[in-house]
Amino acid sequence: MKIISNIKEVQEQVRSWRRERETVALVPTMGFLHEGHLSLTRIACNSASKTIVSIFVNPTQFSPDEDYEDYPRDFSRDEELCRRENVDLVFYPPVEEMYPEDFSTWVEEKDLSGRLCGRSRPHHFSGVTTVVSKLFNICLPDTAVFGQKDAQQAIIIERMVRDLNFPVNIMLGPIIREEDGLALSSRNIYLTEDQRCRALSLSRGLNNAAEAFSKGQNDAEKLKGIVLNELQEAGVSVDYVELVSRENLKPLNIVNCPALLAVAAYVGNTRLIDNCFLNE
Amino acid sequence: MKIISNIKEVQEQVRSWRRERETVALVPTMGFLHEGHLSLTRIACNSASKTIVSIFVNPTQFSPDEDYEDYPRDFSRDEELCRRENVDLVFYPPVEEMYPEDFSTWVEEKDLSGRLCGRSRPHHFSGVTTVVSKLFNICLPDTAVFGQKDAQQAIIIERMVRDLNFPVNIMLGPIIREEDGLALSSRNIYLTEDQRCRALSLSRGLNNAAEAFSKGQNDAEKLKGIVLNELQEAGVSVDYVELVSRENLKPLNIVNCPALLAVAAYVGNTRLIDNCFLNE
Repeated sequence: MKIISNIKEVQEQVRSWRRERETVALVPTMGFLHEGHLSLTRIACNSASKTIVSIFVNPTQFSPDEDYEDYPRDFSRDEELCRRENVDLVFYPPVEEMYPEDFSTWVEEKDLSGRLCGRSRPHHFSGVTTVVSKLFNICLPDTAVFGQKDAQQAIIIERMVRDLNFPVNIMLGPIIREEDGLALSSRNIYLTEDQRCRALSLSRGLNNAAEAFSKGQNDAEKLKGIVLNELQEAGVSVDYVELVSRENLKPLNIVNCPALLAVAAYVGNTRLIDNCFLNE
Repeated sequence: MKIISNIKEVQEQVRSWRRERETVALVPTMGFLHEGHLSLTRIACNSASKTIVSIFVNPTQFSPDEDYEDYPRDFSRDEELCRRENVDLVFYPPVEEMYPEDFSTWVEEKDLSGRLCGRSRPHHFSGVTTVVSKLFNICLPDTAVFGQKDAQQAIIIERMVRDLNFPVNIMLGPIIREEDGLALSSRNIYLTEDQRCRALSLSRGLNNAAEAFSKGQNDAEKLKGIVLNELQEAGVSVDYVELVSRENLKPLNIVNCPALLAVAAYVGNTRLIDNCFLNE
């Protein structure tokens, strides 16, 4: 497994693979890998002959009051995990390699990015689309794999790929959960035992709503109410519960098209998100 | 010579070329081709085994009060000219192919784009960087050739390529001029005989300033004054005369680094631009 921190070196490696008719799949990550990330690398390995994992805690998707400095990092553990998953290349650039001092070009999706998480994190998705554009141009993948855990991010990237004509096929990996239902997240290590317990209200609420939907309930207010109830009972601080179109993230009154039921909530100081697709 | 209007078809064609180890050069144009464009296609033909010319009057780089509707178009003439230059592929998409109805992703360079022409055309360069990003992802060129005539555009695209890591080599073709010095432009057909004569003040002013510089004058105000003088004497309406760093387009007091002397002026209703590099 190669570990490369230099952009030009990655581009040369991928070009040389392409000349040998290899296909390339990319899994962009911020590191501190867990089973969720590893499930994405397995999808990547199955869909291309070479797999690249990028590990980069992207400063431009954090606002100044967020946890960029404290975001958990453990490269030697990540490296070992990638090795075990037969990853071919880990791209691990320093910040200066990705953002030179007079960096001034941004890729911005201006419709979907203002919805859901975009309301409380107004610059987040412009950081994401910019860094993912860079990663696409650096790693030149045929396929890139994103997690459904960050559903809005994945949907925005699908839109960006369509709008800017990136020759990249986007695949979505399902949410990986602990046995009790908690969606895996690098930020879960912030939770105390009590918070961890209350955090289960997110997945429980979504589960109950999905079950109600499968039994015929398609009124958005009622479905959102089921989730809100669980969150409030667990005493977590709700950022949003939204039921929106899978395609354009616009709020739905009735679930009559592929839909996304998404939740964001603060458990203590830790912001957690979770979601499920309805009517797929 | 192939003429393709469909994005996926171009991507497939280029991928098939790549498999055969061909290299690809792109010349992005808005059509109504003149010797300036053709000089760029010759640079392209000399630097790659396959040459693509894109012909697309890009609506997003015009503001509502500009000449998008009236911009001159003559595809059958353009086609014939490309054929004569041994162009391999003309990409000629309709607007709907490039901008679907809910298009929402923009590539924006946020420093250089506000300078020079950016002050009177605030959304122009975001239209340019967005469409050029699309053309890069569609045509997947090794090299793209731009004209020095649009120097700010070329410098912004160089910055964009660096920032977003496009695997594309940018080449600059020199300004092609009429025998009397007028820089070729598709918009020159708007000029009456009298205006055409007064339009010569742009190249004459730049020439005089370049000559003064070559004789040791390196004071920016004095060099700009030489250009301004010519423009005012010809009675054309000055948008700007600027002497800036070639690298970051910041104004210079003394020409002590590679520099760009650039002018924009209205001759009648026609906005003309011209420039020269100093201290290259």
